Amino acid sequence: MTLADLPTPCLVLDRPKVAANCARMAARAGVLGVRLRPHLKTAKSAEVGRLAHGGEPGPITVSTLREAEHFLDRGFCDITYAVGITPDKLDRAAALTARGADLTVLTDEPAAAKALAGHGAPFKVLVEVDCGGGRGGVDPGGEALLAVAAPLGAAGILAGVLTHAGQSYRCRAPGEIAAVAEVERAAVTAAAARLRAAGHACPVVSVGSTPTALFAESLDGVTEMRPGVYTLMDLYQASIGVCAVADIAVSVLATVIHHRDDAILVDAGGLALSMDRSTAKGPRDYGLGLACALDGTPEDGLVVAATNQEHGFLRAAAGPPPFGRFPVGSRLRILPNHACMTAAAHDHYHVIDGGTRVMARWERCNGW
Amino acid sequence: MTLADLPTPCLVLDRPKVAANCARMAARAGVLGVRLRPHLKTAKSAEVGRLAHGGEPGPITVSTLREAEHFLDRGFCDITYAVGITPDKLDRAAALTARGADLTVLTDEPAAAKALAGHGAPFKVLVEVDCGGGRGGVDPGGEALLAVAAPLGAAGILAGVLTHAGQSYRCRAPGEIAAVAEVERAAVTAAAARLRAAGHACPVVSVGSTPTALFAESLDGVTEMRPGVYTLMDLYQASIGVCAVADIAVSVLATVIHHRDDAILVDAGGLALSMDRSTAKGPRDYGLGLACALDGTPEDGLVVAATNQEHGFLRAAAGPPPFGRFPVGSRLRILPNHACMTAAAHDHYHVIDGGTRVMARWERCNGW
Repeated sequence: MTLADLPTPCLVLDRPKVAANCARMAARAGVLGVRLRPHLKTAKSAEVGRLAHGGEPGPITVSTLREAEHFLDRGFCDITYAVGITPDKLDRAAALTARGADLTVLTDEPAAAKALAGHGAPFKVLVEVDCGGGRGGVDPGGEALLAVAAPLGAAGILAGVLTHAGQSYRCRAPGEIAAVAEVERAAVTAAAARLRAAGHACPVVSVGSTPTALFAESLDGVTEMRPGVYTLMDLYQASIGVCAVADIAVSVLATVIHHRDDAILVDAGGLALSMDRSTAKGPRDYGLGLACALDGTPEDGLVVAATNQEHGFLRAAAGPPPFGRFPVGSRLRILPNHACMTAAAHDHYHVIDGGTRVMARWERCNGW
Repeated sequence: MTLADLPTPCLVLDRPKVAANCARMAARAGVLGVRLRPHLKTAKSAEVGRLAHGGEPGPITVSTLREAEHFLDRGFCDITYAVGITPDKLDRAAALTARGADLTVLTDEPAAAKALAGHGAPFKVLVEVDCGGGRGGVDPGGEALLAVAAPLGAAGILAGVLTHAGQSYRCRAPGEIAAVAEVERAAVTAAAARLRAAGHACPVVSVGSTPTALFAESLDGVTEMRPGVYTLMDLYQASIGVCAVADIAVSVLATVIHHRDDAILVDAGGLALSMDRSTAKGPRDYGLGLACALDGTPEDGLVVAATNQEHGFLRAAAGPPPFGRFPVGSRLRILPNHACMTAAAHDHYHVIDGGTRVMARWERCNGW
């Protein structure tokens, strides 16, 4: 079977590119002297999780309890669930530990910390620290850090600290990213030092984002990193210099359904591509995705300018789009702005071996 | 079971509101004297499809062949697949007719029309007409209309014409919508008249969009309408005056995971809500969704101001958000900007009977 035989729209994964992205990050973890705990919220695939660890299950990060269940069923036992847990989710998380998971959860709220401490399940708990990303997390220098840690330490379930430098996505050059990586490292190691000074053990000091993992100059004091999007890469990462467009391993296969005066209409719309417009905020705007020929060669400037639910509008940077190369019924591939969002619109990958031959189907674990 | 017992994030459907929305549209079809062929791309649910027809399967519209297969399996035989078909999809569509589907497809391309005419399956085919929406479709007054119709007529599979007034979404008042509805009616009836003048039968004259279906003053010459989002409604429809916020039947249930200085963080992020920002283009911007109490009462001005993959940031229109009413671990519901996109992030509905008691689980048909 080849890409010409698949029903469209569908999700295509280039295995050699995934393997190369994984090898690059594994080498980085080696150089930096930290454990690699890939965040599988992007790929949501056990096969990709194994590629990230050289072919075997290894430590992973997940964003939903459903992912934790999915990966445990497939041999991944060392799992960090990296969204602040709430009391209503504790029983479901505890069921994972009863099935053998070595489960780490995180919190930044005293109420949740008390609920974790009182639950009785053998959780390991990280205190989430905000290093400037402005999502979850306590101030590494504030009182809340110790307030959250206290009940966890008393219950013997405090495992350490974790942060995520989400602000690295706003960088525009490797030097800027390296500076953010140092902010991330400094915040989480400062938090770890305060916990230790308060008498707590703090074996885990965890950072993570694909840009900072690739451009950090030192991770002294850090024990692990949790990059995620690197396994697939996307146009946003390419636009900020974290990868080349040629490194993007995931694309949406589409069929041309109509020619308009100024646009080629394809059968991949807002549902198949997602509505993520992240490159609008970056140094290069790719609309809702960049078109490529069936063999993966990018069509310079031919982007998805607009979508309806099941229609995508391809327009050229200037002048008419290349109608002649893409007649009605022909096929092309669309690289995503944001791999996490686009891939989540599909429940499986059609895996290719670099060309157009389809060698496997890999399931994804969507939902909650 | 109640909304307090469900794992979050998840999708909630208020059955009495769906039923009321369906009754309103069925009454409109009666007044206008046309067949109602609801577009189930929004709800993607057989139970909603039956509610649209008073409890029994009836004629429907779908946006994917997977939907067509799903609904045929559930007793819906009269199906229009309303995305321009391409030659590679003909065998899969023909398999539906072999299983008993009364399948109508559409095209606006001579090449696809010839492929349909030569296939041999008992398709019915509508020629798609552009009435100003600027998506697919031929000019109702142009040569392409007759060029596309010719091979279909010769093969005895031409069933009529179809259009969609997508521009109705840009209206701001009932009077504007009524004017667009007349443009829609005039375009498709003009196309039908030209086909008849050329000797073709044209039994089906199909229009469709929720705004125009609700505010059209006359559908003289039209035989059916295909509104879709009306079954669930959403904030965009409310913002342009097509429904009240209280008519919105679908919401995302979320749990509060953290309080920041200026925001309440919940566990419904970009994946659970979709990244659709349609209300940014309308008269009232609801961010990525409007928060409601667990009983469905909207919190005026408390919107999802930003998302990460699994985090939503609720911010108030002015000042701090109502932390006291939404402590960590509490729950709320989020109304969507665009029901089609948000619902597609979930594979089922938790159905409530107007209160907070969960009475059923209804499956959705996502994917392709």
